[in-house]
Amino acid sequence: MKIDAETIWADVLKIRARAPLVHNITNYVVMNSSANALLALGASPVMAHAEEEVADMVKLAGALVINIGTLSPRWVEAMARAARQAHALGIPIVLDPVGAGATPYRTETTRRLIAETPPTILRGNASEIMALVAAEALTKGVDSTASSDTALEAARQLSLAHGCTVCVSGATDYVLAEDTLIRVHNGHPLMPRVTGLGCTASALCGAFAAVNDSPPAAAAHAMAVLGIAGELAAACSAGPGSLQVNLLDALYNLSAEQIAARLQLEA
Amino acid sequence: MKIDAETIWADVLKIRARAPLVHNITNYVVMNSSANALLALGASPVMAHAEEEVADMVKLAGALVINIGTLSPRWVEAMARAARQAHALGIPIVLDPVGAGATPYRTETTRRLIAETPPTILRGNASEIMALVAAEALTKGVDSTASSDTALEAARQLSLAHGCTVCVSGATDYVLAEDTLIRVHNGHPLMPRVTGLGCTASALCGAFAAVNDSPPAAAAHAMAVLGIAGELAAACSAGPGSLQVNLLDALYNLSAEQIAARLQLEA
Amino acid sequence: MKIDAETIWADVLKIRARAPLVHNITNYVVMNSSANALLALGASPVMAHAEEEVADMVKLAGALVINIGTLSPRWVEAMARAARQAHALGIPIVLDPVGAGATPYRTETTRRLIAETPPTILRGNASEIMALVAAEALTKGVDSTASSDTALEAARQLSLAHGCTVCVSGATDYVLAEDTLIRVHNGHPLMPRVTGLGCTASALCGAFAAVNDSPPAAAAHAMAVLGIAGELAAACSAGPGSLQVNLLDALYNLSAEQIAARLQLEA
Repeated sequence: MKIDAETIWADVLKIRARAPLVHNITNYVVMNSSANALLALGASPVMAHAEEEVADMVKLAGALVINIGTLSPRWVEAMARAARQAHALGIPIVLDPVGAGATPYRTETTRRLIAETPPTILRGNASEIMALVAAEALTKGVDSTASSDTALEAARQLSLAHGCTVCVSGATDYVLAEDTLIRVHNGHPLMPRVTGLGCTASALCGAFAAVNDSPPAAAAHAMAVLGIAGELAAACSAGPGSLQVNLLDALYNLSAEQIAARLQLEA
Repeated sequence: MKIDAETIWADVLKIRARAPLVHNITNYVVMNSSANALLALGASPVMAHAEEEVADMVKLAGALVINIGTLSPRWVEAMARAARQAHALGIPIVLDPVGAGATPYRTETTRRLIAETPPTILRGNASEIMALVAAEALTKGVDSTASSDTALEAARQLSLAHGCTVCVSGATDYVLAEDTLIRVHNGHPLMPRVTGLGCTASALCGAFAAVNDSPPAAAAHAMAVLGIAGELAAACSAGPGSLQVNLLDALYNLSAEQIAARLQLEA
Repeated sequence: MKIDAETIWADVLKIRARAPLVHNITNYVVMNSSANALLALGASPVMAHAEEEVADMVKLAGALVINIGTLSPRWVEAMARAARQAHALGIPIVLDPVGAGATPYRTETTRRLIAETPPTILRGNASEIMALVAAEALTKGVDSTASSDTALEAARQLSLAHGCTVCVSGATDYVLAEDTLIRVHNGHPLMPRVTGLGCTASALCGAFAAVNDSPPAAAAHAMAVLGIAGELAAACSAGPGSLQVNLLDALYNLSAEQIAARLQLEA
């Protein structure tokens, strides 16, 4: 699979031209920042979580992004319903198991969602991905306590069992699918000090999946774009507050030259 | 009706002096940004959505702003209850039908809310306003797919049928009421790349309606102030991230001179 | 009790080193900004509100922060459950009675929560604190209509009745507990123009309570750190938009020297 600065840029141009609708059922903490990141990239975000409408909204969408960060029973039912609709219509599904491993409710809900309708892309940090296969939960709240390469084996199992692409994010992001393993080294150490950039990564996976039929390519493109935008933002930021702002500006202004100059990816 | 830089400024001063309470029942995406815009302008925002308290909170408010952006059944009941209370007490109601036309649930909920208690000001983009009268839904997610002048006829019908002021926002904002038609040309093309600035417009309509007895004047004042603040912010912004921040600073620092120099309004 | 720049700095270093998990059951408006403030300070925030998981999440936490800003019945039940679990495990509880006094629902809910499980630290503005003891509600929405020193007597009553530390925030912040009265004079007049900085104060009380066994010391440390960061941020901000951003940068970059140079505290 060819994944390089040119394939990334081609997808960015497609997103900007088509403005695909990305339907998010996500957590309260990041709704604003995820919507803004999608808009800055060129996609069209919508948030809708009522069981009364999710199946209708999915019909209009280029991708569905499900994020369990502030889950509750009614929302979980809507996530399941939206996923079934997306699956029936062939619309890609991104699942972000925020905090899986921290509580049984999160772990079990994620397992149920995956078992019922396997996502196209499963994206989490190392602790979350490991919690989905391990008997022992290792997650502290929503931050990872494991490094992303220790989660590789868990990711491989999940990918095989459910036929999905798995993205383990961290200092290095790993994208696994069948016999594909892509490593993305872009990003900046200040990024985890901004809340919800993992959720932003999942939202961007949705935008790229809406314009690219290859899930591993879409996931790798999204992680590279977010990592590069984060590096560009960090270079002019005094701390996490300004990083959050500058990241949106960087996504909006992203150029082919910036991607070519900064991309650190092993496909 | 006299609407010019002086009437706008007079209302801004009233808002700053009185800090009217604006009760918002709005969507999760924009709660923070709407509250901050109201505070920056000089109003006092409150968010409260429980059926157990909305009627009590409305009693304290200078205006009620209802926004269906992330609607669900319990919230809709609270919106209906708050609207009845506001109507009974003569408190102005702003209704923002976010995403009407995208799903039947949004379209039908908006129609029900309007039929039950007509709002003082109905503010939406062209697609949303058209969806409320058209048989065919035209909205893609929450972004408009129609231009605001094609929605003028729909706005006229809604205004006549429900006796309310209708504001159709877009590159040009239209404010319609009976024989009044006001056009506001202020704003900046970068503004739609920040999530929820339409919702901010509705929130500001609430602040102006709290100090001005004329709904079309209040709506036009709000649209002009937001458009001018957006222009001032865009002039010093590198992208949508900094625009969102600078817009709040611009609202806070807005002066009579800035309004007089920039206002582009046909009354 | 010794409370000075050195004790504050020692706690900041502990938070940065241990990254205590702060479990927030808070309002929709401030979830993003509270999470970002905790991350900027060095703590690890998590938001979780489902009755299905709050007791499990509390087990992992260094502190529980309950904030009723957008309360509804299911959330209140989860708050009560989480508080019982925290009490049973000896985990400090911070309670922020946002808008108590504005509606009977807020006042009664706060009273019920306090009666059922007294918080370790109760932090509100003057109107809110007074509403919890007064027959007459005085709060307009969520902004205080009383000065913080008029609320001192109410705070003293609450502290005695429930054995908790009470923090009344305002131009001067008061921290009361038994025979302790601490005054913190740090802060900036622009801060109330940013939504939810009172909620941020409560979140930071949680972070400090997670590393300091003395509740009044934790509360005073939190108020001083927020006030100082606010002053530093205001010095380079053009308005409330940039203040919100710069405050996070200031929290992240806070130094022993800045605290020593700016602290205005009477213990």
